[in-house]
Amino acid sequence: MTELRFVPASEFEKVLAAKIDPIKKAEIFSTLCRINVLYMIARAGSGHIGTSFSSIDIVSWLFLNELNLPGDGVAEKDADVYFSSKGHDVPAKYSVLIAKGLLSFDKIHTLRRLGGLPGHPDISIPFMHSNTGSLGMGISKARGMALTRRLRKQKGRFFVLTGDGELQEGQFWESLQPTSNRGMSEITVIIDHNKVQSDCLVSKTSDLGDLEAKLKAFGWHVSRIDGHDFKQLQQTFEALESVKDRPKIVIADTIKGKGVSFMEHVVMGENDLYRFHSGAPSAADYERGLSELTERATMLAKALGLGAIKLESAPPAEPKNFDGYERLVGAYSRALVKEAESTPELVALDADLVLDTGLIPFKEKFPERFFECGIAEQDMVSQAGGMALEGALPVVHSFACFLSDRPNEQIFNNATELTKIIYVGSLAGLLPSGPGHSHQCVRDISALGGVPHMALVEPSCEKEVEMITRYLVKTHRESSYLRLVSIPVKIPFTLPEDYRVEFGKGVVLCDGADAAIISYGPIMLSEAYKAAQDLKQRGIALRVINLPWLNHVDTDWLFESVKDCPIVITLDNHFIRGGQGEMVLSEIARLHMPKLRKALKLGITEIPKCGQNDEVLKAHGLDSRSLAQSVTRVYEEITLIAAQ
Amino acid sequence: MTELRFVPASEFEKVLAAKIDPIKKAEIFSTLCRINVLYMIARAGSGHIGTSFSSIDIVSWLFLNELNLPGDGVAEKDADVYFSSKGHDVPAKYSVLIAKGLLSFDKIHTLRRLGGLPGHPDISIPFMHSNTGSLGMGISKARGMALTRRLRKQKGRFFVLTGDGELQEGQFWESLQPTSNRGMSEITVIIDHNKVQSDCLVSKTSDLGDLEAKLKAFGWHVSRIDGHDFKQLQQTFEALESVKDRPKIVIADTIKGKGVSFMEHVVMGENDLYRFHSGAPSAADYERGLSELTERATMLAKALGLGAIKLESAPPAEPKNFDGYERLVGAYSRALVKEAESTPELVALDADLVLDTGLIPFKEKFPERFFECGIAEQDMVSQAGGMALEGALPVVHSFACFLSDRPNEQIFNNATELTKIIYVGSLAGLLPSGPGHSHQCVRDISALGGVPHMALVEPSCEKEVEMITRYLVKTHRESSYLRLVSIPVKIPFTLPEDYRVEFGKGVVLCDGADAAIISYGPIMLSEAYKAAQDLKQRGIALRVINLPWLNHVDTDWLFESVKDCPIVITLDNHFIRGGQGEMVLSEIARLHMPKLRKALKLGITEIPKCGQNDEVLKAHGLDSRSLAQSVTRVYEEITLIAAQ
Repeated sequence: MTELRFVPASEFEKVLAAKIDPIKKAEIFSTLCRINVLYMIARAGSGHIGTSFSSIDIVSWLFLNELNLPGDGVAEKDADVYFSSKGHDVPAKYSVLIAKGLLSFDKIHTLRRLGGLPGHPDISIPFMHSNTGSLGMGISKARGMALTRRLRKQKGRFFVLTGDGELQEGQFWESLQPTSNRGMSEITVIIDHNKVQSDCLVSKTSDLGDLEAKLKAFGWHVSRIDGHDFKQLQQTFEALESVKDRPKIVIADTIKGKGVSFMEHVVMGENDLYRFHSGAPSAADYERGLSELTERATMLAKALGLGAIKLESAPPAEPKNFDGYERLVGAYSRALVKEAESTPELVALDADLVLDTGLIPFKEKFPERFFECGIAEQDMVSQAGGMALEGALPVVHSFACFLSDRPNEQIFNNATELTKIIYVGSLAGLLPSGPGHSHQCVRDISALGGVPHMALVEPSCEKEVEMITRYLVKTHRESSYLRLVSIPVKIPFTLPEDYRVEFGKGVVLCDGADAAIISYGPIMLSEAYKAAQDLKQRGIALRVINLPWLNHVDTDWLFESVKDCPIVITLDNHFIRGGQGEMVLSEIARLHMPKLRKALKLGITEIPKCGQNDEVLKAHGLDSRSLAQSVTRVYEEITLIAAQ
Repeated sequence: MTELRFVPASEFEKVLAAKIDPIKKAEIFSTLCRINVLYMIARAGSGHIGTSFSSIDIVSWLFLNELNLPGDGVAEKDADVYFSSKGHDVPAKYSVLIAKGLLSFDKIHTLRRLGGLPGHPDISIPFMHSNTGSLGMGISKARGMALTRRLRKQKGRFFVLTGDGELQEGQFWESLQPTSNRGMSEITVIIDHNKVQSDCLVSKTSDLGDLEAKLKAFGWHVSRIDGHDFKQLQQTFEALESVKDRPKIVIADTIKGKGVSFMEHVVMGENDLYRFHSGAPSAADYERGLSELTERATMLAKALGLGAIKLESAPPAEPKNFDGYERLVGAYSRALVKEAESTPELVALDADLVLDTGLIPFKEKFPERFFECGIAEQDMVSQAGGMALEGALPVVHSFACFLSDRPNEQIFNNATELTKIIYVGSLAGLLPSGPGHSHQCVRDISALGGVPHMALVEPSCEKEVEMITRYLVKTHRESSYLRLVSIPVKIPFTLPEDYRVEFGKGVVLCDGADAAIISYGPIMLSEAYKAAQDLKQRGIALRVINLPWLNHVDTDWLFESVKDCPIVITLDNHFIRGGQGEMVLSEIARLHMPKLRKALKLGITEIPKCGQNDEVLKAHGLDSRSLAQSVTRVYEEITLIAAQ
């Protein structure tokens, strides 16, 4: 793509000022907002188009006509609240807020950039009332807000948007009955029922059954409408005002990708993967999508007598070239199929992330041994527990952030049964940093590290992925958690030819006697390795050690690996608290190492920042340059002391 | 009570051999089993009578007439499976298994004893098919078992008992739809609908709404019966055999405490707390209950021509005397009310444990600021998140094991909003050890330690509870997790008069320069303190340091506290992995301490054992004598080396 185009503030001002039928106004408004959603995501290089397009008519209607907002003569404490529980549709809300002037217009250029608009909602941004992005929490949060308002005799209504795949989460159902028991008519939930979840059709992933009957049985008032029909939106919200005895839910039938013909899910085959859930559009898709949306906007503007819609231009996202990069999830995908061939008891479970966890080849090769569980991590993990009790070897997949936390107690429960289960958490670590802290998993080593009889391990490159996958399936007798970085990484080191996987032991990637750094995984080890090359120029010899085991270390190996070094540094792609470094240093304290002068823990110390990968790595002080500086500082400090 | 009485094996043999109507047989069988349940719990000194009595007719019927078990001509791999998802009714199942000869009879004397029958199901015991005790996992586990059987072309049906309070858990609902989507008619769920949960009536805690409509809407076949009517049980299970297209659920209306008049929930007032959920019966209640059950058994036996029922005697449980013991939950209860008086924004949330978390005085004093959430920890925590966003200060309560794990991601999500929430986990640590590993919380420091902007803290005595509660409410600006031991503890130390709570800092409880031990909480500090007294006799001076902060330590304070000690030992009432000790020792590694010769991590290294408190503490090597031995060993080791 040569350039990107967006609708400027002036065009929205024109539309908003026009004295036209509110339904017509909403139509053109949401069409223009779609152009800006497409722009924001194309510029960011990632984002969720499909769900932004399915929900944007609803969001537009609410902000144009329904919500009592501060500034409309309502005090902030009594204002209505709208937020999305699924959260990944946030480009739609940003676009609407910007169009209405509720968010400064130049934010439009900053989606998923450091200091800009986060990839999932964060309350640091105006009108973002809750941090969401992990599914199922929305109604609970809204009830908490509403109960506090009641206690303080404040007013305000709460509108919560949910996904439909999201309804597979237990917390959604857990939150329904307490809300109806309290007769909370100030809460209205709108289900963006676009029929497609992350991978494919909801009905093919884990069908929702008779949704209306279910919701009514929980004591909610249920309406069902076409979520793209503004007339129905108008009438429904109007009618709901008279329901005063119970909370309300609107099932809004929508189309994922609505507004751009080839992005609309209705054109896909019923077993297809949906192509526009996340990620950036290709240049061709962008151009074609923009052209369709512009054509429609022009037509609507013309019919309304608003004149031509003028777009402004912006430079495109920088193209990325991943030649020579390693992809660990791809390597895992191949390794799993290979091990499964000779391990008939191996079954794979997935929570609606078949694409991101590399399970498609497994699913195709072993359809009977593949179990799609939907977005239901607790159920998936306990199901795996039952399978293991009957002699299967379950391999359980999701994003690390969800797999480590959501079914945390279920994983512990399985562990107490002493069965063998392999958990595989992809998207682990600080990067990619575009999605924001709901998806940046830097707490899983802590959250799972204490589970008894479970080894946590993270491979550093495609070759090690293959070796460790084999080890976990074939050699290791207990449960394990395989932590996988998902971004492609250009890896500057190679594992020694004679490297073998041994429990609790690691391997030196480059030698040096001035300081040793112990880390794991492709990102941190690559940065540390690059730092070592830099430091060599400055006369500091840094030993880089790969210890893939995250909650176990072989004490003898550790002693031999660092006993001659005056400086030992640990480096976590994780919060320092509860990471590998704490575990390693606590063992170092137990060892008698007369040469050790200084130990240092590096890693993440604050809530992960959202932005582009390189800028976020640097902002957390974990890029190779920052690492080299940290090592130099300690080196100079002890050299100075020694000289005194 | 002077002695306890139980029904011996010979009486069950007589009943089982009798050629009588199966309904009559089940009646007398379950009555005799009730006598043994009462015996087991009275002897153990704790256990769940109410739910054992509500479910025992169902369990009896299943084992007498419904299940195809190994030994009935069915191969083990094809046998039917029965297990309870709630798990705390396990005395009923033990009693039935023992009566049927499926478990060795002498196990009857070993409930909640080391090496005996655990307080919640554990698969190390025959016919215990799954570890349960944390709620809501049962259907997911059964599906996992059944799917594996399907894959292997094995037979067998799965009967899962659930509670009714348990239905408040999201995972229950999460597990329903996937089971019906697969048409799993081999799964039958029986809801022991005894109307009462841990504290009081389900309808008063968090009403279940139209249960039948809800379950049907999820695609299950639903029956509703009187769970104490064997004729209905017989007819229902018979009729269910013809349902082949979907899973089945039986709502069994039961009476909590059924069989002993004054234990039956129907005699309590609708706002009363139910007295027989857990714990042991008083001597008077035991005698009266036994007398009622024996009378009924005698009457039934007579009517059936089976002759008199002979009971055998056993010694009673040793009486306990808690004079002079400190109760931290009681102190917390008082402190919370006190702080709430001057903190109007403070609200308290509970998950059906108002009695165990000390919330009754708060609830009575501030009814509007008290929120009962039912057994719905995820919903409760996200609700608290919403409350905090609106300016309240939520204090969120449950057992530590459930609060730290079940809503683990919800707690992290709240933390990313930078609001202030206080989480209070009682029943923390290894003891009480009677309930077993589902309730022995020794993983919470790890599971929550990495949550950003959250301080974990555990007070050591009533006085410190009061000081820390005040500190968390009034002084500390971020979120916190207050970890509370629930058992009464005889505390041998006193806090210095001038002790003040300071973030990351602790206090010396007794001095000594040979070794320093750093720990927290009443149990470990008491054992360490007693060890120090013993060691003094042997000429070893042990410094005992109370560091209440579990995931933060002030480095300067730490250095000053131990810099002169050749031995530093950390002691966790938690798994060593991820506990306070790892965090402290990793800081010690960073400090330059020339006098340090040896560091040691003590704590829990294996899945917590079930048994009486003293025997379990010893079995884990954490009683004062074992601690003294550990210290002595290290002391002698470094003395020896120094002498060489």
